[in-house]
Amino acid sequence: MTSPAWIIQKKRDGKELSEKEIRDFIAGVASGQVPDYQATALLMAIFFRGMTLDETVALTRAMLESGQRYDLSDVPGVKVDKHSTGGVGDKVSLILAPLAAACGIKVPMMSGRGLGHSGGTLDKLESIQGFNVRLSFDQFKDVLARVGCAMIGQSETIAPADKKLYSLRDVTGTVECIPLIVASILSKKLAEGTDALVLDVKVGSGAFMKTKDQARKLARGLIQVTRKMNLPCRALLTDMSQPLGYAVGNSLEVLESVAVLRNRKQKDLSSADLRELTIQLCAHMLDLGKATRNLNEARKLAQKKLNDGSAWDVFEKLVEAQSGSLQQIREPSTLNISPRTVTWGARKRGYLTRMDTEAIGRILVELGGGRKKASDAVDPSVGLIFHKKLGAKLSAGEPIATVHLPAETAGTIDPATLQARFDEAMEITGARKPVPKLIFEQL
Amino acid sequence: MTSPAWIIQKKRDGKELSEKEIRDFIAGVASGQVPDYQATALLMAIFFRGMTLDETVALTRAMLESGQRYDLSDVPGVKVDKHSTGGVGDKVSLILAPLAAACGIKVPMMSGRGLGHSGGTLDKLESIQGFNVRLSFDQFKDVLARVGCAMIGQSETIAPADKKLYSLRDVTGTVECIPLIVASILSKKLAEGTDALVLDVKVGSGAFMKTKDQARKLARGLIQVTRKMNLPCRALLTDMSQPLGYAVGNSLEVLESVAVLRNRKQKDLSSADLRELTIQLCAHMLDLGKATRNLNEARKLAQKKLNDGSAWDVFEKLVEAQSGSLQQIREPSTLNISPRTVTWGARKRGYLTRMDTEAIGRILVELGGGRKKASDAVDPSVGLIFHKKLGAKLSAGEPIATVHLPAETAGTIDPATLQARFDEAMEITGARKPVPKLIFEQL
Repeated sequence: MTSPAWIIQKKRDGKELSEKEIRDFIAGVASGQVPDYQATALLMAIFFRGMTLDETVALTRAMLESGQRYDLSDVPGVKVDKHSTGGVGDKVSLILAPLAAACGIKVPMMSGRGLGHSGGTLDKLESIQGFNVRLSFDQFKDVLARVGCAMIGQSETIAPADKKLYSLRDVTGTVECIPLIVASILSKKLAEGTDALVLDVKVGSGAFMKTKDQARKLARGLIQVTRKMNLPCRALLTDMSQPLGYAVGNSLEVLESVAVLRNRKQKDLSSADLRELTIQLCAHMLDLGKATRNLNEARKLAQKKLNDGSAWDVFEKLVEAQSGSLQQIREPSTLNISPRTVTWGARKRGYLTRMDTEAIGRILVELGGGRKKASDAVDPSVGLIFHKKLGAKLSAGEPIATVHLPAETAGTIDPATLQARFDEAMEITGARKPVPKLIFEQL
Repeated sequence: MTSPAWIIQKKRDGKELSEKEIRDFIAGVASGQVPDYQATALLMAIFFRGMTLDETVALTRAMLESGQRYDLSDVPGVKVDKHSTGGVGDKVSLILAPLAAACGIKVPMMSGRGLGHSGGTLDKLESIQGFNVRLSFDQFKDVLARVGCAMIGQSETIAPADKKLYSLRDVTGTVECIPLIVASILSKKLAEGTDALVLDVKVGSGAFMKTKDQARKLARGLIQVTRKMNLPCRALLTDMSQPLGYAVGNSLEVLESVAVLRNRKQKDLSSADLRELTIQLCAHMLDLGKATRNLNEARKLAQKKLNDGSAWDVFEKLVEAQSGSLQQIREPSTLNISPRTVTWGARKRGYLTRMDTEAIGRILVELGGGRKKASDAVDPSVGLIFHKKLGAKLSAGEPIATVHLPAETAGTIDPATLQARFDEAMEITGARKPVPKLIFEQL
């Protein structure tokens, strides 16, 4: 094996690493033969020098091959998954997985937990009492075959090299690096055994990628690697300049997802963007999986299956199959939601023209509903309900959000400080500004 | 304390770190609170982003303050040390320390071991039977006061953060980085308690810095930081495009040093460059330490003390004070030198116009006389004696070097392969080329 120090130097000097060099290094990371301090030096060198497409493919493959690869070929039907680059209030997966299953495709979904300002599907699911995201491979296959979708966390055996590198990147300033992001996302998606993949690449103040340019670069990187790896793939660039839907916080997001799945309009609250994005993503999954003749037909089918309650039926089956409480989702007022609320209003009259959505995610973290570091526990009962979306006309003091504070009087949180941060995150101006489109672009 | 991850990100993004941030990070490295994988990520970010003068000063100070600082104020006389950036056949310190002491200044010298192609003073000293480079602080002061010079290794208590970072840099491609080199050199020199410092910055095929430009940058970096730290300092840029003197290898270099100290000319062998460089460096040490009225006077004094045997007398006292064998240095044929020799000749007629001096250093490593990694043992008995220097006119087959092979028939070394590498390292052409000057520049 080429010495790890030499591989680091080669990348540092801007030269292209060979497939073998990348494979050896990553295998060494997974086995522990390459110490963490060499891994992080290479990660930082990659941050500065980037990676060619061939290198990124080799890295993806090496991380994929560091662990188990699920074989779902004996589950009948076409398997299509969706991956989102993450944001605030993004509970799409909870609605989308049962909806796409109701439309006739299989959705083998492997999700993550929230970290920093960004939420995670697993945390949302676990706010349903009893919901088990740690299925064995056989259980996963069984639920997928019976229900049409299954939602689990990344097991220890899936891409262990990615797991290790991800935790190192998090504390060494090497998260924001497109080839590393691409390889991390795709190695896991390739390992879960899906036949095709729809990517929801978020753009805006609550997204990882703050500009369209960055998001487009990431989307292109993802698409290029999936092509080389023969994974049919499509990417949408979608808006994350405000929370998706009205709820931010784990139990509250389940509440909103249930309302959308049951077509229940909530007074004064809008899930229109959430509903629309879910339908569009579902349509692309169906189209990519060739479950319908074209995208237009796919969109109509998705709308129908959401409206006629089929998606809700699948969701109930999913919750039951993964040991979650049916009673709680049927009667969402029984979810673990803190009754201790305050309302934060507009500090002046005007139009709500911009939200610092990352700051909203960080307020959730402060409330205890998100994580500063991966080992933190999450309180599902806290969060924010937004009464207003971007573009709203506000009178002074008019409620923007109802905040569910931690149930016990937590000594460390000062609601007044949080409200000040919230005020800062809301831009209210005298003149209207155009609200960003929900879907910018398709790649 | 600011989080290490945040400090890494700040540097990664090209922002200047504050003195406190650098101090906190380095203190964390020394205490183990900052894990190695964060240290190497910061090192790589510094490699790409560089450091301002203020940052480099803060880094030097932080590494200095991570350990003990020797106080030599109760040793009478002005203390001046010399530091070389390292090369092949550089045995200057062995002659210079006793010579400068003979001229009336005190030389508290803390040296390193050989690594890679570059030799180390400690290994050379230890090829004298019994020579002890691990003196306690009190022993060090005592030898310095009595003999006029003392030569030791870096103790565990000196700049431990540098020790840790240096070993990490060695395996993560972050050695070649001027602010890191500057802080590493100067933190140790400041810790050893010297009043002034002369730097020998090597340039050429056997040096760390292959071009004058690079060497000048390093020299400037060193000088700027010493100014900020109030350490009187001078730097010479000197030639390392061929081995210094004629001997390469630990015992052989002691042999040559003894010959220079005793003014014994060896038939067919030239130490002229070694002798000249030592006198010049000594003159600058005397001048910087204000031991003479001017540089010219200093040079004359150095010549005199070398010629009249005073330097040799001090060397004998030094060896005795540090428990080395007087018999061996008085009768250098009793040094541990392998009798198993071969001669490598010119592969064609012409002029010796270039040497790949780093390759010569690597041949010594292959012979067992140097180290691939810090934990390797060194065989003092092997090495090369050069019969020719750059510019020599050669007939085909004329001996260039006599090689002392390892005494036991070492299975791993194939002398023919080494000779082929040696041949490649010697450029022989039909036309003369100018031989580089010994001293290029003074800063």
